[in-house]
Amino acid sequence: MRIAIDAFGGDNAPLEIIKGAALAEKEYGVHIVLCGDENIIKKCIADNNIIFNELDIVNATDVISMHDDPTSLLKAHKDSSMAVAFRELAEGRADAFVSAGSTGAVVVGGTFIVKRIKGIKRPALAAMLPSPDSYYMMMDIGANAECRPEMLHQFGVMASAYLKKVEKIDNPTIGLLNIGTEDTKGTELQKEAYKLLQDSDLNFIGNIESRELPNGVCDAVITDGYTGNIALKLIEGTAITLFSMLVLVFKKNFSTKMCYLILKGRLRGVKNKMNASEVGGAPLLGTKKPVFKAHGNSNAYAFKNAIGKAKLFAENDVIGTIENSFNEEEK
Amino acid sequence: MRIAIDAFGGDNAPLEIIKGAALAEKEYGVHIVLCGDENIIKKCIADNNIIFNELDIVNATDVISMHDDPTSLLKAHKDSSMAVAFRELAEGRADAFVSAGSTGAVVVGGTFIVKRIKGIKRPALAAMLPSPDSYYMMMDIGANAECRPEMLHQFGVMASAYLKKVEKIDNPTIGLLNIGTEDTKGTELQKEAYKLLQDSDLNFIGNIESRELPNGVCDAVITDGYTGNIALKLIEGTAITLFSMLVLVFKKNFSTKMCYLILKGRLRGVKNKMNASEVGGAPLLGTKKPVFKAHGNSNAYAFKNAIGKAKLFAENDVIGTIENSFNEEEK
Repeated sequence: MRIAIDAFGGDNAPLEIIKGAALAEKEYGVHIVLCGDENIIKKCIADNNIIFNELDIVNATDVISMHDDPTSLLKAHKDSSMAVAFRELAEGRADAFVSAGSTGAVVVGGTFIVKRIKGIKRPALAAMLPSPDSYYMMMDIGANAECRPEMLHQFGVMASAYLKKVEKIDNPTIGLLNIGTEDTKGTELQKEAYKLLQDSDLNFIGNIESRELPNGVCDAVITDGYTGNIALKLIEGTAITLFSMLVLVFKKNFSTKMCYLILKGRLRGVKNKMNASEVGGAPLLGTKKPVFKAHGNSNAYAFKNAIGKAKLFAENDVIGTIENSFNEEEK
Repeated sequence: MRIAIDAFGGDNAPLEIIKGAALAEKEYGVHIVLCGDENIIKKCIADNNIIFNELDIVNATDVISMHDDPTSLLKAHKDSSMAVAFRELAEGRADAFVSAGSTGAVVVGGTFIVKRIKGIKRPALAAMLPSPDSYYMMMDIGANAECRPEMLHQFGVMASAYLKKVEKIDNPTIGLLNIGTEDTKGTELQKEAYKLLQDSDLNFIGNIESRELPNGVCDAVITDGYTGNIALKLIEGTAITLFSMLVLVFKKNFSTKMCYLILKGRLRGVKNKMNASEVGGAPLLGTKKPVFKAHGNSNAYAFKNAIGKAKLFAENDVIGTIENSFNEEEK
């Protein structure tokens, strides 16, 4: 199992990316292929005493940044670390791809370098979000700001396949994010998507209101990328704001500070539960080979987790399952 | 100042509504006009020893429920407590209207009984949401699932007028809810609305990402009703889920339970801060007279607050300001 890594993608690249890759080699036994400036990578490994058993480096001196137009991956930045890693995957020299770089560029590379599964209109990003007892998937979280109803239906098919194969959920429940439970709610997009999901073979449980979302009321919630991105960041922002308000409570006086000492381990547990690094990132579903997007602010631990998820994505034939279930849906 | 009250709207009607109205009379010196079944209202007042100095009751034996088609307010339920209260306002026998009933019906009544301000395409609901230090407005929170760019621009004009007059904010900052800060982000709706807001006289500060929203980074955030409704309920749901996770932390053992005893007053402060009843509800902006929607689950205290906001809405000439600022915008 060879994993092509964009060593220069993300806020903490290349150090945390390379450290995470070394951790992943040790934990998952994967073969790491680091893409990026060879001299910098070698110096970083030496300076930080990072140990790999085996390692391939594919040289790429350019980097695509968060501020570059994502489509520049295909032309101006076609020799960037991300584009080179994508070609390792597309041309069969790697089994999966992981990057913590520009989300837009990952979507562009997945769509145009790795290419879409036949019949899939648009690949989409599927993130695992924390609920009190477990996790649930939200898809799309931002690959496609504008969606058509058929796309939402396809997202449901792909989410279901991924959850079956990677998360080992038997018959995943699929919900549609909406502003009410009745099938007449929402915009034309939700009304039409509701019908398509209802008529499919999916385990569709209807509309899900956002108030219920953080409780994990279905295995996957389907939404357009605009709303999904708003929702993803709003859950994070609300949790951050609430914790900052709690910190003020604990700072009040001596006894509240003592309480903090007693509680801090458990509070950190709750905070980590809401912390994106625990989940690792988001698979891009709908491409011919496994593409995984790690969080932009991934540290070594988060990036290691992302590689672990990418390995599961690759070894459980998610893509074959999508092809099959999609073909069955189409019949 | 006469306030027409839909006495039979909301989960806790009529008791909490009538109690809230009595509290409002005492606190704000408003003249209450209760609309609904006169016999039930009188019995409820007598049974619960509710005291009014002055009170008008307008009899209406029918009620429009959350499950009724909102447009039935105009025909099948034209004699409901809500429709009768709307006519008190529209026909000049009241200065403001408050209901905790069906949001859809309030929007229908505002639009078709009270009617729109000239030039306003669609009225919209503007809620005040808590930030750590203060509040911010979100508009629309659900009156219009589908919006056009000109509508979002008008929402900005109306939000700004309301915040100036009722919340006494000098030059309110207006943000556009979006999935990135650049003006190229979002769907066609956001891209076009961005241009209109940018070219207006409003104090437009650009796109706001949802991660920043709970921190209160602008005075009013503008969005379509679908996204606004999703965001409003998601903030609430995330806070509820986080508090339920904290409760489990406190239940762990003797010392964590002691901590709870020490902290509970302050924690309740944080929880109340996130609690919708503190804010009261949402004005419907864009109608010719003041319409205020209280939360469906309002208790007496929350409903009293809603009446207080409706009074401020009426006495500060928000509607004249919207007419003027809207006319200036149009020039």
